[in-house]
Amino acid sequence: MCYSINCFLIKDSMFELVSSGTITSAKGFLAGATHSGIKTEDELDLAILYSELPCAAAGVFTTNRVKSAPVILSQKRLSRGQAQAIVVNSGCANACLGQQGIADASEMASLTAKKLEIGAADVLVASTGIIGIPLPMDCIRSGIERIKLHQNGGHDFARAIMTTDTKPKEIAIKVDAQRSEFIIGGVAKGAGMVHPNLATMLCFITTDALVKADFLQSSLQRAVNASFNMISIDGDTSPSDSVFLLANGLAGNETLGFDNGKAFQEALNEVCIYLAQSMVRDGEGATKLIEVTVEGAIKQTQARQAARAIASSTLVKTAIHGNEPNWGRIVVALGQSGAEIVEGKLDVYLNNTCVMRQGCPTSFGQEEMRAALSASDNALIRVCLNLGNGKATAWGCDLSEEYVTINSEYTT
Amino acid sequence: MCYSINCFLIKDSMFELVSSGTITSAKGFLAGATHSGIKTEDELDLAILYSELPCAAAGVFTTNRVKSAPVILSQKRLSRGQAQAIVVNSGCANACLGQQGIADASEMASLTAKKLEIGAADVLVASTGIIGIPLPMDCIRSGIERIKLHQNGGHDFARAIMTTDTKPKEIAIKVDAQRSEFIIGGVAKGAGMVHPNLATMLCFITTDALVKADFLQSSLQRAVNASFNMISIDGDTSPSDSVFLLANGLAGNETLGFDNGKAFQEALNEVCIYLAQSMVRDGEGATKLIEVTVEGAIKQTQARQAARAIASSTLVKTAIHGNEPNWGRIVVALGQSGAEIVEGKLDVYLNNTCVMRQGCPTSFGQEEMRAALSASDNALIRVCLNLGNGKATAWGCDLSEEYVTINSEYTT
Repeated sequence: MCYSINCFLIKDSMFELVSSGTITSAKGFLAGATHSGIKTEDELDLAILYSELPCAAAGVFTTNRVKSAPVILSQKRLSRGQAQAIVVNSGCANACLGQQGIADASEMASLTAKKLEIGAADVLVASTGIIGIPLPMDCIRSGIERIKLHQNGGHDFARAIMTTDTKPKEIAIKVDAQRSEFIIGGVAKGAGMVHPNLATMLCFITTDALVKADFLQSSLQRAVNASFNMISIDGDTSPSDSVFLLANGLAGNETLGFDNGKAFQEALNEVCIYLAQSMVRDGEGATKLIEVTVEGAIKQTQARQAARAIASSTLVKTAIHGNEPNWGRIVVALGQSGAEIVEGKLDVYLNNTCVMRQGCPTSFGQEEMRAALSASDNALIRVCLNLGNGKATAWGCDLSEEYVTINSEYTT
Repeated sequence: MCYSINCFLIKDSMFELVSSGTITSAKGFLAGATHSGIKTEDELDLAILYSELPCAAAGVFTTNRVKSAPVILSQKRLSRGQAQAIVVNSGCANACLGQQGIADASEMASLTAKKLEIGAADVLVASTGIIGIPLPMDCIRSGIERIKLHQNGGHDFARAIMTTDTKPKEIAIKVDAQRSEFIIGGVAKGAGMVHPNLATMLCFITTDALVKADFLQSSLQRAVNASFNMISIDGDTSPSDSVFLLANGLAGNETLGFDNGKAFQEALNEVCIYLAQSMVRDGEGATKLIEVTVEGAIKQTQARQAARAIASSTLVKTAIHGNEPNWGRIVVALGQSGAEIVEGKLDVYLNNTCVMRQGCPTSFGQEEMRAALSASDNALIRVCLNLGNGKATAWGCDLSEEYVTINSEYTT
């Protein structure tokens, strides 16, 4: 499996990457975008995603106790497990604005429902951008009117949600399951994830598979746990973070649920992991993807804690940027992760070379390791706690510039 | 009360700042340091602190599950509540070295005990520097022999423990309590506390007060909670972090305990807060001290969580560096701190100006606020949750350079 930005995954014969895949790759989904005027430059900043049929719908939202108006509204509407469209803007988060924010988010949905001739309750809303500034509703009103929906509109949608992103993030996978074929596509925005980065992440996923609503919500939560929640530490979220999943059933497959949804879950995980990794790679000044796998933890939750702590450690990030095999920083980040460890049982691997065995440094070749780290834009860290069966993988990017200059010259 | 680096505290008539105060300001304490050769340049890197009488002794150590050999050794010896000397080196942390590390730390203590003609069990050890490299014991052996103890040796001791620090950190306070006078002095090392900074912090505190051992340990833990634990987030510690407190009783005061130790506790808090703030001010590229007070939390623990989360938020730090009154970042950091909040009850003050009232932004003067932030090297953030009586203060520094360039140009 390969996740570099131009080289995609084909996990096994069951999955196939859709060429130029996006959220309108699955049957029956249309999208469109416009420059409404929220952003000052002539960039796309308002977009609509629409399904020809009402969808089973699921969502996972920010754990921040401060929630934007669109999050409050969408979370409430998703309790029905159904939606048919999503309207989204960038440039203004519509957060920290009290009742005005709720009224504006609600009007955005109503205008979209009217345009699409569907019920307002079937429209979800998302916003990303500046906090505490009211939405310029004149721009939103005329913008929604102007948007034209296309079968290939996913690419414009992906551009319209960008803020600090340097490139759009899109993917679609065709799944050839036992008795049916279906497509899962996704787009996302969000860059950085330098801890503690509060840049909003938004993700929109569509599928033409027929999926039961309860399984849909559960599978989305699982996929988010294995992807977006592994590129940042717990609770490290903006008021606007949202992941949406719409399933319209147009693929004509046997209804998927907990008993027959394995391929769906795996494909959904792949889509989310790909999009999460794309966010990490788009981090400010990032040059390397750091993949941290922790094995042998007492529990899986502890493996997750430990992997995230290492991947989000500023000093690990700076060491990797400087191609320094500074295993001490890995061990220290592990030690403060909260995961149970026994120092004398600890093995640590950097790019598959053992740098610490049973709690003591090995005599690995420092120069060879530096050369290997320099030569690749991926750094692999593997930590074996040798205490149990808990295993998890997290991703981070390196950290460059002045902060590195200071931290990579002093070895701790 | 004023904590800028050259302008010290006189809280009320009870406390008086000792001129050029340090750990040898209290009666009966001697110290000395040498260049042993651990550091390559001709810098002090090995030091001894000694009391003419055995002391009641207390210690607070790292919460990292990876602990350096000196921490393991000192923690064990302090279970007796007694010590008479501390030997410390910089340049090598003696961490992640298994049994070899324990043996070396133990030998350091024994050599010091022999030199001072006291029991080895009465000698504590601390080390700070590179992880995973064995202590150069030849340097340590000849160095300990060479060290000469002086009544004014605290200043050399303070220099000998420095690593990334740009200046030594020392203070002493004379306390005029009801029936006695005593002095509390302290030195510390540690710079940065840029989250998640793993630079070791060491702190050594001496007093000639006569203090019961159980109260001594309890008062040190309280002082650490109000100071060093409020400049970083929970668990964000290196394997070597240690705070030591020795009390030799030479002031001849009435024995201090839980019933009559209030002035002692307050003075100890001041010493620790001063040293903690000095560390923050010595942060990499730091230009401002950020003081965050959270009031009205349901519990004090939640106020502590919230204050720390705001003070350690990278985006708050960058905003303050850019003199941007970006209250949105404060609210977002608060929202993910885990503290209970009700958005509609939230008031936020920046340098005593209300920037958010009842969850909505006020129309404060952005330009005046920018000018006020620019003019001062202190930034005050006050958050009123208006839910209960929990209150806490935390400190952080601003964050400069390239990371700021990226983050301060985009308002989230």
